[in-house]
Amino acid sequence: MKIQRYKHDSLCSYALGMTLTMELLLKKPEAARTVYISPEIEKNRNYDAMDALCRDKHIPIVTSEKAFNILSPKGNCFVIGVFEKFEERLSDGNHVVLVEPSDAGNLGTIIRTATGFGLKDLAIIRMSAVSGTETGLTDQNAPAGKTGEANRRTAVDIFDPKVVRASMGAIFRIRFAYFDTFEDYQTAYPARHGYPFMLQKTSRSIHDVTFEEPFSLIFGNEATGLPDSFAELPGLQPVIIPHSNEIDSLNLSMAAGIGMYEATKKT
Amino acid sequence: MKIQRYKHDSLCSYALGMTLTMELLLKKPEAARTVYISPEIEKNRNYDAMDALCRDKHIPIVTSEKAFNILSPKGNCFVIGVFEKFEERLSDGNHVVLVEPSDAGNLGTIIRTATGFGLKDLAIIRMSAVSGTETGLTDQNAPAGKTGEANRRTAVDIFDPKVVRASMGAIFRIRFAYFDTFEDYQTAYPARHGYPFMLQKTSRSIHDVTFEEPFSLIFGNEATGLPDSFAELPGLQPVIIPHSNEIDSLNLSMAAGIGMYEATKKT
Repeated sequence: MKIQRYKHDSLCSYALGMTLTMELLLKKPEAARTVYISPEIEKNRNYDAMDALCRDKHIPIVTSEKAFNILSPKGNCFVIGVFEKFEERLSDGNHVVLVEPSDAGNLGTIIRTATGFGLKDLAIIRMSAVSGTETGLTDQNAPAGKTGEANRRTAVDIFDPKVVRASMGAIFRIRFAYFDTFEDYQTAYPARHGYPFMLQKTSRSIHDVTFEEPFSLIFGNEATGLPDSFAELPGLQPVIIPHSNEIDSLNLSMAAGIGMYEATKKT
Repeated sequence: MKIQRYKHDSLCSYALGMTLTMELLLKKPEAARTVYISPEIEKNRNYDAMDALCRDKHIPIVTSEKAFNILSPKGNCFVIGVFEKFEERLSDGNHVVLVEPSDAGNLGTIIRTATGFGLKDLAIIRMSAVSGTETGLTDQNAPAGKTGEANRRTAVDIFDPKVVRASMGAIFRIRFAYFDTFEDYQTAYPARHGYPFMLQKTSRSIHDVTFEEPFSLIFGNEATGLPDSFAELPGLQPVIIPHSNEIDSLNLSMAAGIGMYEATKKT
């Protein structure tokens, strides 16, 4: 297998480090292809556990200095799990829906938090098809001096090793699927209770919402939020997390975390 | 004034970008010393507003290419606000207490979220003086392959420009103070309701806690959490945010955000 830096069109991606590789081997062994180890690895008890797992699943362990030079030049990583990209149909349970998320760290954090709250189905919408006035929602990920501008971007790649890392390996514990538009998602998963998280003051406060199941918690892009038109879509109940006007908005992963916390509190 | 990269022992720090500089000028003008502008700046309506504010507050605007070469080499920043470091006594209202936070991004995000929930007093404890078995709490900020290890660190510097940036300027809207130990904090602010957020299953679920005011919400380090001994300190009510055992822990800023959301919900 040719070792090359991750690109969006690569067939495989990488779990960098022992912790992430163990998550891969334990929770998604069918996707694992190879485990690279550094010549400098310390073969301790953790290593033995990994070695046993690889034997059991028939996954080769290959010593390669080159792999680490290319994939983890910082030198603090001694194990890399190579896995084939995967995608599967979501369950009919509760979903988290991210519309055009653009930041790898946020996506990973949301996956980790969702897993913690038992939400294991994630839909990612590449483009918000419903057009409308964009909100002034800004986020720390917007370039300095450019906050407040609407930078329309395509959704982040969930297989980016940065997402895998920020998820702490929880990516191997969830189901996820990409959709080109929100309408495509709705067609695939109709008859659900949809809760778009908005900044509009006319939305219902999360304190007063009873989340009915199966639900879809819908969150917009870091810089632009959800288009206003999500408040008008039939069958959706817009929700707002009240905060003081001293900040423009909560950051995306924070809003998603609070939304997921509240929606799953009584389930 | 000599322009130099930020160091922990510098007397001044920097707000990089127009948005952060405007927050500085509007909310903490007494700390502002100089505003550097790039020769390439576009003198639009936002610039005019900043210019007027600087005149009004007698803060010099200095054109300097050098300042940007040194302080923002990436070249996407056209305004830098220089400010003198500040610290002030906390109010007797509700507090957020961070014990040895180590990550600048997390600290900034927590400041932004706290401001959004009206919590404008932050205590940072440099070292947890109460010793005890460390929890296995891990975080995405721990180095790859080293998660789960207890890396005892000193608290992050709140004036690091990365914190200023991640706070989206909310740092200029809050009061904060450093303490060497938690005991020092307790001595300075006695007779409060303290809620340490723990991972111990014996802690009370946040769903069942009624937060009495004035409260102190206490959160531990990213990698190690709060020492177990915080659960034993007299007068404190340990709290847990329940999550599945599929993740080790919520990330620090997420746990803090959810804690702050819940504690301020009814106030």
